[in-house]
Amino acid sequence: MTRKLILDLDTGIDDALAIAYALGSPEAELIGITTTYGNVLVEDSARNCLAVLDLLGAPHVPVYPGLPHALARDGFEVLEISAFIHGRNGLGDAALTPSPRAVEGTSAVDFIIEASRAHGEDLVYVPTGPLTNLAASLKKDPGLAERLTVVLMGGALTVSGNVSPWSEANISQDPEAADAVLRSGVSATMVGLDVTLRTLLTYEHTRRWRELGTAAGDFLADMTDYYIRAYETTAPGLGGCGLHDPLAVGVAVDPSLVTMLPINLAVDLEGPTRGRTIGDVERLSAPRTSRAAVAVDAERFLTEFMSRVTALARTR
Amino acid sequence: MTRKLILDLDTGIDDALAIAYALGSPEAELIGITTTYGNVLVEDSARNCLAVLDLLGAPHVPVYPGLPHALARDGFEVLEISAFIHGRNGLGDAALTPSPRAVEGTSAVDFIIEASRAHGEDLVYVPTGPLTNLAASLKKDPGLAERLTVVLMGGALTVSGNVSPWSEANISQDPEAADAVLRSGVSATMVGLDVTLRTLLTYEHTRRWRELGTAAGDFLADMTDYYIRAYETTAPGLGGCGLHDPLAVGVAVDPSLVTMLPINLAVDLEGPTRGRTIGDVERLSAPRTSRAAVAVDAERFLTEFMSRVTALARTR
Repeated sequence: MTRKLILDLDTGIDDALAIAYALGSPEAELIGITTTYGNVLVEDSARNCLAVLDLLGAPHVPVYPGLPHALARDGFEVLEISAFIHGRNGLGDAALTPSPRAVEGTSAVDFIIEASRAHGEDLVYVPTGPLTNLAASLKKDPGLAERLTVVLMGGALTVSGNVSPWSEANISQDPEAADAVLRSGVSATMVGLDVTLRTLLTYEHTRRWRELGTAAGDFLADMTDYYIRAYETTAPGLGGCGLHDPLAVGVAVDPSLVTMLPINLAVDLEGPTRGRTIGDVERLSAPRTSRAAVAVDAERFLTEFMSRVTALARTR
Repeated sequence: MTRKLILDLDTGIDDALAIAYALGSPEAELIGITTTYGNVLVEDSARNCLAVLDLLGAPHVPVYPGLPHALARDGFEVLEISAFIHGRNGLGDAALTPSPRAVEGTSAVDFIIEASRAHGEDLVYVPTGPLTNLAASLKKDPGLAERLTVVLMGGALTVSGNVSPWSEANISQDPEAADAVLRSGVSATMVGLDVTLRTLLTYEHTRRWRELGTAAGDFLADMTDYYIRAYETTAPGLGGCGLHDPLAVGVAVDPSLVTMLPINLAVDLEGPTRGRTIGDVERLSAPRTSRAAVAVDAERFLTEFMSRVTALARTR
C-alpha cells in the first residue's frame, strides 16, 4: 500500500522543496498539508503551500489551517534571521502565481486526528516547523500517540543548535510543544541538524532546474539560489544550503537513508539550556519511543532528491 | 597478541574498580598506570593506585606520576562533590594497607610516548580523568596522534552533563586538554555519560564480593557500598552507582560492548557551554577520527564486570 503523508509546514524555501520531494515520490501519497508558523506567519505558509501545490500540478491536495503561535504565547513574529534566509514572501522573493484556492474549513488539529483514524499505520506525519499543531492534537486526542508515526525536522542532538549553541529553530519556537510530543510516547523520528547540515545543495544543482526551461524549474532555481546566497552569509564555510525539510520527507519515504539512534528524547524547558533536545536520563533504559537520525547517506539522498524534484519540475 | 593497556587514573572508587577489571581481563596486559587529578589530588591517586595494585596481586605494575592540574591553571583543589562521592581517602574511606612502593622516576608523559613507540597498535590508552597528561604528550610528540589508540571515560553527547547541564566532570576539569586531544586526529573513543549511566552496580552485587571472605572482597565491597550510598544522595532515582571508569576499560578490551557513533568531536571552550563535548560542525563530513559510545549491552557488561572482578578478588 502507498504510504500516506501529511506535511506540517511553515513554507519557507526548504518547505517548498519538501513539497516537491513528496509529490515526486511514487512510494508516497501527499494527502494533505497542515500549516504552521516559523519561517513565515501561518497565513503566509498557507498562501505559499497553495501556490506551490498549484505550480507543481497538485491542486487537489488540501491545505488545513494550523495554530498561529506557541500554546504558551500570545502571538508570533517572524524573526529577522528567518526573513533574511527565506525572503519577504518566504520563497526567496521568487515570482509565483497566487492560487485561487483557499484553506479548508477543517482545522489542522482535526484533520490530523481524522486522518490518523482513517489511515492508521499507513500514515506518516512530517512536521518541519514548531510542533504546536501536533501537541494540540495529542492533547485533544491522547489516543493519537498510539496510532501516529512522526518524522520531524527539528532539534540537534550531537551538534550545536542554530539559534543558540544548544537550540534548533523549530524546537525553540515552542519548546513545551516539542517536549510534550517527545514524552507522549508517540513514535517519533528526529531528523535534526545532526544530519540536515550534511545534505547540501549548490548552484550546480539549481542550474539543472533552470536548464529545464519550465515554469517550475525556473521557480525552484530562483527560490533556491536565494537560499544558497543567504547561507553564504549565515554559514560561510558550509559550501551550500542545508536540505532540512526535504530530508525529513526523504526519511518518511525511505528510513534507510539515515542511521537511527534509538533514544528517549526530551526538551529542556527550564534553566539555561531551554529549547535543547537531549536524551532523557530518567528514561534511559525504558523502551524507546523516539529515535534520532545521527548519520545520513548524503550522496544517495542528494541523488534521490535531484532525480525526484527534477522529474517533477520537467513537466510543469 | 595480548592487548597492552595503560590506565590514566584519578583513583577514585570507580578508578579502583577499573584497575580490578583490567587485572581480571585475560585479553589485556596492564603495562602501567599514569596518575592524574580529579576525584583526588594527583599524589593521592598515586598512593591509591599503588595500594590497590598491591592488594589485587599486581605489585609489578609501575605507576608514573602525571601532571597535577590543568595546563591553563595554576593549581587544583578537589571539589566538595568529589570528596562526598569518593570519601576522604578517595576510596570510600575503606581500609587499605599502604604500598611500600613509590611512583617511577619517569613522568607520565614520557611513559606514554615511550610505550606507544614500543607497542604501536597493540597499545590502548585509557584515561578516566581529565585529559591533561595526554594533551601534554601530544604536544611533546605530535606523531603520537598517528600511533595511539585512546578509549576515554568522559563527556556527554546525547545526555546532560553531571557538573552542569552540558558538561561532564572529567572534561570540565581541563576543557582545553580535551579539545586538543579530540582535534589532534588521534583515534579516540568517547565512553561518556551516554552509556556509563546505564551500567549500574547495586548492593546485590557488592554482597557477592563480601561473601568471598577475602581481603580484596571486603575492600571492594566496603569501598563500593560507600559509592552506592553517595549515589543515593546525588542521583536518587538511578537505583545504583554508575560504572563509569570500568566501562571504559571494558570497551578497551572488547569494543563490541557498545554501539559507536563515528563523529568528529570537539569541546566548547568559549561561551555559555564551555566544557561541552559536541560534534564539530566544521568537520561533519571529514574522515572521522573519533567516535562516541551511544548504546551499551549493559547486561553483558555487568556480567563480564562481575565475573572478572569477583574471580580476581576470590584469591586475594
